Amino acid sequence: MVQIPNTPTSADVARLAGVSRATVSYVLNDTDAVRISEPTRRRVHAAARELGYVPHAAARTLRAGHSRMVLMPAPAVPVGPLYHRFLGELQAALGRLDYTVVQHGAVGQGDEAARAWAELRPVAVLAPGSGLGPHGVAVLKRAGARAVVTLGPARVEGAHALLMDHTVVGHRAAAHLYDRGRRCIGVLLPEEPGLEFFSHPRLTGVRRALNGTDATVTGLPLAYTERAASELAARLPELGLDAVFAYNDEYAMLLMRALEDAGLRVPEDIAVVGADDLMLGRLLRPRLSTVRLELPSGRALAELVDHAVRHPGAEPEVRTVLDATLIHRASS
Amino acid sequence: MVQIPNTPTSADVARLAGVSRATVSYVLNDTDAVRISEPTRRRVHAAARELGYVPHAAARTLRAGHSRMVLMPAPAVPVGPLYHRFLGELQAALGRLDYTVVQHGAVGQGDEAARAWAELRPVAVLAPGSGLGPHGVAVLKRAGARAVVTLGPARVEGAHALLMDHTVVGHRAAAHLYDRGRRCIGVLLPEEPGLEFFSHPRLTGVRRALNGTDATVTGLPLAYTERAASELAARLPELGLDAVFAYNDEYAMLLMRALEDAGLRVPEDIAVVGADDLMLGRLLRPRLSTVRLELPSGRALAELVDHAVRHPGAEPEVRTVLDATLIHRASS
Repeated sequence: MVQIPNTPTSADVARLAGVSRATVSYVLNDTDAVRISEPTRRRVHAAARELGYVPHAAARTLRAGHSRMVLMPAPAVPVGPLYHRFLGELQAALGRLDYTVVQHGAVGQGDEAARAWAELRPVAVLAPGSGLGPHGVAVLKRAGARAVVTLGPARVEGAHALLMDHTVVGHRAAAHLYDRGRRCIGVLLPEEPGLEFFSHPRLTGVRRALNGTDATVTGLPLAYTERAASELAARLPELGLDAVFAYNDEYAMLLMRALEDAGLRVPEDIAVVGADDLMLGRLLRPRLSTVRLELPSGRALAELVDHAVRHPGAEPEVRTVLDATLIHRASS
Repeated sequence: MVQIPNTPTSADVARLAGVSRATVSYVLNDTDAVRISEPTRRRVHAAARELGYVPHAAARTLRAGHSRMVLMPAPAVPVGPLYHRFLGELQAALGRLDYTVVQHGAVGQGDEAARAWAELRPVAVLAPGSGLGPHGVAVLKRAGARAVVTLGPARVEGAHALLMDHTVVGHRAAAHLYDRGRRCIGVLLPEEPGLEFFSHPRLTGVRRALNGTDATVTGLPLAYTERAASELAARLPELGLDAVFAYNDEYAMLLMRALEDAGLRVPEDIAVVGADDLMLGRLLRPRLSTVRLELPSGRALAELVDHAVRHPGAEPEVRTVLDATLIHRASS
């Protein structure tokens, strides 16, 4: 095996700068606890630069008993531009508060995943999706996580909750379609795995909005293929539907193409509503009505995480963070 | 401050199981170096379960001098379904080889980012994009990374390179348009920050493919808005263009809508080619010609990473991992 360059340690930096290891640690970790003269600070920084020394997060973690690492398990499905921007903001804001944000790759579901995350000894875990249960939260806390925050449809015992309840999306779509006089409403349910976390609550939202009215609701499972869409379009008239909430704008585009090919008119025969307010909806003809999702600023959430880390014994907080607005265009 | 649950240590596990701490470590880290009887193994696992003990990655890192952590900086732009699937495969394959894959959030560019990554002491870094330079690679190696692998357009000194050279995408589009008799070819250049890493090499690929022919190439900067697209569509006839390579399928859809609104026919007046082979291209009318990108299997790349970790002194390997195929439909 060929020689690997020796990793410089803080002892090497201390030797070169002519100071103690403790001084190196104080300077490079930017502690205010100890007063160190400016020339000494400069000497330490110069020595660290010359040697190419990088502090060791693991060693710091062991010394402090916890890290400044906020762990975010990566979402299991590709995220849209809205959620991507939200994550970016959140990471930048946590960075300004001196946390290091690390995303963990997929490692299975629930408690198995929690154990893998716990090994990294994060000071906080921000878990999207709905895989984490109370046992997983306890594993993380025992491993030193001061705050576990879930992003999902329901709260989990022991964790703070940012409630992303997608029922509101279905609710907005259904209320709009009902207002427009539609009474037989289909709801697309994508068959793509992972999307049920969003599509089922959206269906529930549609049902709730129409509960006690004269409208009917029909779930319509659909694979994301042209063939499946064209088979569904052919069945819509016999199902007697006059409107479809198409899950999102991409499924709406798939459906609208199939409806046009089947000779059905939008919105005269079938009204269509998407979700996400993607550019493509404005490019479709007729222009697509859609539900725009609204997430809070990443900065506000970063402050919640920071507060939770500073007050690890406080009661779990529950915040509703997803809202939605209907944007009416020509397809409904 | 309220009492936080005590974090159980390996000493607690050792006490409960009636064995030494070393034995706990051997059993839970699944070492083959030491023979330990089955009943002892069972006792250790039962004690760890009872106490909710999770091994400490940082402590293990310090003992071993390196971790099993493969760090992947998160891509700066939202990734499409193809790249998302590729990353998912790669993570799963690295997981089967007993690596923990961690994605690091955005922390600025180049060497600054490399220092932040180095603090986590990953055993390997798999860096997408083109921000990392030779100095950053050296920082990571001095911090103990046994393999640095870049995913990008060019190789970086000291690192293994998975070359994702997007010139091939532009090359395929241009060669096809030339074959179809087009001679005045525009190339969309999205103004969205971050996309220049892909759009500039694609433009270069178009120029190379047409070098020495009678065709002309015009770069067309475009913001992702309907207004910008409609202004561009209005200018196309005076620019004398007869074809546009539209960067990707989404920009192609934006452009095709603007062309239709401006009374220009596709492909008679202007041929259009996208890239990515998204479903939406098949849903457009005329159906969109596109360039399909081909990435290798994540498994093959996981094996390359593992090999590089085992042979840290070997010469950097360079592999071309992006290929592309033209899919001819009705828009060209």
